[in-house]
Amino acid sequence: MDTSLLGTSFIGYQRARGGDACGQAVNPADNEKLDPVYQAATSAEVARALELADRAFPIYSALPGPKRAEFLRAIAAGIEARVEDLVARTPLETALPEARVRGEAGRTIGQLRMFAGLIEDDAWADPRVERAEPDRQPMPKPDLRSMQVPLGPVAVFCAGNFPLAFSVAGGDTASALAAGCPVVVIAHHSHPGTAEIVASAVIGAAQATGMPEGVFSLLYGGGPNVGTAVVASPVIQAVGFTGSRDGGMALMEIAAMRPRPIPVYAEMSAVNPVVFLPDALAGDAESLAESCFGSLTLGCGQFCTNPGLLFLPAEGSGEFLDALAARIQTATPGVMLSPTIAGTYEETTADVSAQPGVSLLARAADSGVPNTAPPMAMTVSAADFATRPEMQREMFGPACLIVLGDSAATALALDTLEGQLTASIFGSPAAIAAEAAIVSRLRKLSGRLIFNGYPTGVEVCSSMVHGGPFPATSDGRGTSVGTMAIHRFCRPVCWQNAPAELLPPALRDA
Amino acid sequence: MDTSLLGTSFIGYQRARGGDACGQAVNPADNEKLDPVYQAATSAEVARALELADRAFPIYSALPGPKRAEFLRAIAAGIEARVEDLVARTPLETALPEARVRGEAGRTIGQLRMFAGLIEDDAWADPRVERAEPDRQPMPKPDLRSMQVPLGPVAVFCAGNFPLAFSVAGGDTASALAAGCPVVVIAHHSHPGTAEIVASAVIGAAQATGMPEGVFSLLYGGGPNVGTAVVASPVIQAVGFTGSRDGGMALMEIAAMRPRPIPVYAEMSAVNPVVFLPDALAGDAESLAESCFGSLTLGCGQFCTNPGLLFLPAEGSGEFLDALAARIQTATPGVMLSPTIAGTYEETTADVSAQPGVSLLARAADSGVPNTAPPMAMTVSAADFATRPEMQREMFGPACLIVLGDSAATALALDTLEGQLTASIFGSPAAIAAEAAIVSRLRKLSGRLIFNGYPTGVEVCSSMVHGGPFPATSDGRGTSVGTMAIHRFCRPVCWQNAPAELLPPALRDA
Repeated sequence: MDTSLLGTSFIGYQRARGGDACGQAVNPADNEKLDPVYQAATSAEVARALELADRAFPIYSALPGPKRAEFLRAIAAGIEARVEDLVARTPLETALPEARVRGEAGRTIGQLRMFAGLIEDDAWADPRVERAEPDRQPMPKPDLRSMQVPLGPVAVFCAGNFPLAFSVAGGDTASALAAGCPVVVIAHHSHPGTAEIVASAVIGAAQATGMPEGVFSLLYGGGPNVGTAVVASPVIQAVGFTGSRDGGMALMEIAAMRPRPIPVYAEMSAVNPVVFLPDALAGDAESLAESCFGSLTLGCGQFCTNPGLLFLPAEGSGEFLDALAARIQTATPGVMLSPTIAGTYEETTADVSAQPGVSLLARAADSGVPNTAPPMAMTVSAADFATRPEMQREMFGPACLIVLGDSAATALALDTLEGQLTASIFGSPAAIAAEAAIVSRLRKLSGRLIFNGYPTGVEVCSSMVHGGPFPATSDGRGTSVGTMAIHRFCRPVCWQNAPAELLPPALRDA
Repeated sequence: MDTSLLGTSFIGYQRARGGDACGQAVNPADNEKLDPVYQAATSAEVARALELADRAFPIYSALPGPKRAEFLRAIAAGIEARVEDLVARTPLETALPEARVRGEAGRTIGQLRMFAGLIEDDAWADPRVERAEPDRQPMPKPDLRSMQVPLGPVAVFCAGNFPLAFSVAGGDTASALAAGCPVVVIAHHSHPGTAEIVASAVIGAAQATGMPEGVFSLLYGGGPNVGTAVVASPVIQAVGFTGSRDGGMALMEIAAMRPRPIPVYAEMSAVNPVVFLPDALAGDAESLAESCFGSLTLGCGQFCTNPGLLFLPAEGSGEFLDALAARIQTATPGVMLSPTIAGTYEETTADVSAQPGVSLLARAADSGVPNTAPPMAMTVSAADFATRPEMQREMFGPACLIVLGDSAATALALDTLEGQLTASIFGSPAAIAAEAAIVSRLRKLSGRLIFNGYPTGVEVCSSMVHGGPFPATSDGRGTSVGTMAIHRFCRPVCWQNAPAELLPPALRDA
């Protein structure tokens, strides 16, 4: 593979020239800048990418599923062929270890192949056929046939914390392309080189499989000239985003204020409550604490499903808390994805620590290495927690707030929680069944309800729901992981009394 | 049946006392007021209805499908038992003829029974089961099971133009109740007595089938104290609305500005373009004009699917236009639903008539009877039409604008159209197939594509799509007619490693 990075956008099949420099990646391990300097797409280049996407849409959306599947598989193969390039570049941009990069590349490749498999036949599009009943009384019934059709070109924003699986060719892009929507990706400023490597795989696959130019573009630069301009464009029909709450809310507002509003699928923030019932702690508290520590510090805590909020009985939690504290105190702080994220970790943990009633349980020693995040845990009473929504603030990284109280206090505290991606509960089936008030609240506020397990680790499959009530996501009716993600980019259309040859193949008589 | 009307809201199982009078229905045929005077729900009553809905939700949503189906069927039976009451009251409030009231009652009853049938088993909720693979390498796969669950209490606004099928127990209410969502209905000021009769059927059915109080409430009054307060309430999780564009946009804005935004399903406005290809007009132009006139004037043109915009070839349309004009000129103007709607008809038709390039083709003579709408048709060139978006304005009633041009000009004019509920095309299959540019545009802008038929007449069935890109609806991913409507009020939830007894029955092993 040619690993030379040019630092410019992909406008359909052309490399952009770009206008203003929009920065370089920074190695968070040493704060050194990485070549090349990236060039923001100019307004004319953004307009061109949108125009190409608009023109590609009718052609691309009309391709048979197996042809789009071929494209998705070619992207997967292209990424597979570039894994060593990614292993060379991505850790420098993100401080993620090689094993994570290989694992995330594998997941990304797997997702693309999963969607390719899904669209090999048309069942995913829910084809419905009701034949005419010309003799029905008092009125004849017309021939009616409906199915899901793609919305149109989609804007996808790369995620800071998943440079592969939620970025250029990640889940949003894979599901939108599978649905039949061209995609305009906006690169994340912190891993532009990774984006360039993956974009070259997508473009190579599009050309090799004869896709219309404009089925994919990648834009560098952000702000009003690139990100806002794309979301505000009449060409764009939906938006996929994974990132901060402020970022997601800004996109929701732009989309809602358009002359023609469009859906935004923003995955924004979650603290993923985990409730421990007394009988869970009466068992092997050591190993429970061990796995809790593992989930809390996995990937330096930089997952949307990180367990940031634990509910424990005020009585009988001592052994678990001691075991968790011991592990946290002796942990080695990891390097975070970027200086910005490291700074936000410091700020948000300090902010939660300073809330009345919050005590420090344990904190790892500072490492002296730049951009590292010492794992930490704090405690607060359920009564105090329930009065202060500020304590629900996401501390993106390896930190958790532990809320202590009995079942009744826990249920009241859960009532104050915002929407979440996940909610977990530990206990024997009988103990859980006895806490109906807690279980029903956990289900109501989340998209995935986990029994005797921690929330990190999101299986990519047909039954996964990675979404949840606001503000976990902007639109709790969707998922950004698993096959159901494709439905975010579709709408139903009905054909009435259509001549057979004018129906989509999926709706014709066999 | 007890037909006495009390003029007050239904707050769960209690009749409200109400605070301020919020008016009486007016008979549009003679502008006379109809008893009783209706009382707006007080703020305390609104709060009580919301509180009851919130409390009913966990109970109601946990009922098995067949139990909810029993409730829906009891509502249908209750309306059936009140048809004569409706026939006595609804025509006075709406000027709709008795046959229409009977027909719309039948449709409403049929919709309720259709949703009852749908939820007899759980297939509609898309249950997905993936069993654990504890030995999978490198990581075990957990047991994952997902299905659609109801969003929570839903606010439904009654429609002015469908006092039964899109009102108290209409499609929005039926689909929300079927999904497992309690419903808070806001009555329409123009047919409060009809609302009261239907609400008594719903409440009777809820009590007879043992539903939790709060599964249904009906509120009189509008504005900030009732409508806005309900949509802004944290209890409400979705909104159903059929009405004006201004009304729908106002609800969208309230919903988007909430601390926790919620989806709004507003069906707002459409002109439902109908394209005639030359070979359609070369056939029996007389009968084509006859059926066009029938669709245009059906129900005094007061349907969301009224054909308000016709595209005809500039050459060869003479016979059709003459035949249509002759029918319009001799038509008897019908009484409209309300003085407001009659006034808006006058204003919007005058506004479109005054656009440069627009000529009057035909207009019926005024009747001298209050609140009547003379059918009318205007013509304009496709070139003029394409430059003036004002001409797309919906003229709610029996009026259409006829756009004259060749295929290329029609395609360009279609490019300027906003989203529509329906789009129709007349021609032979070969002629339609030859106009791919037109067909693809019609499909792109609408939710239902009709061949050789007019858009009025919306079949209630599993393949129907009554929705479309903005502004036809606020959210083109849904339909407000047919079984798919239920999905608007659901979101997916995933259970991970749940003990069998804590799974919803639909997700348990058989």
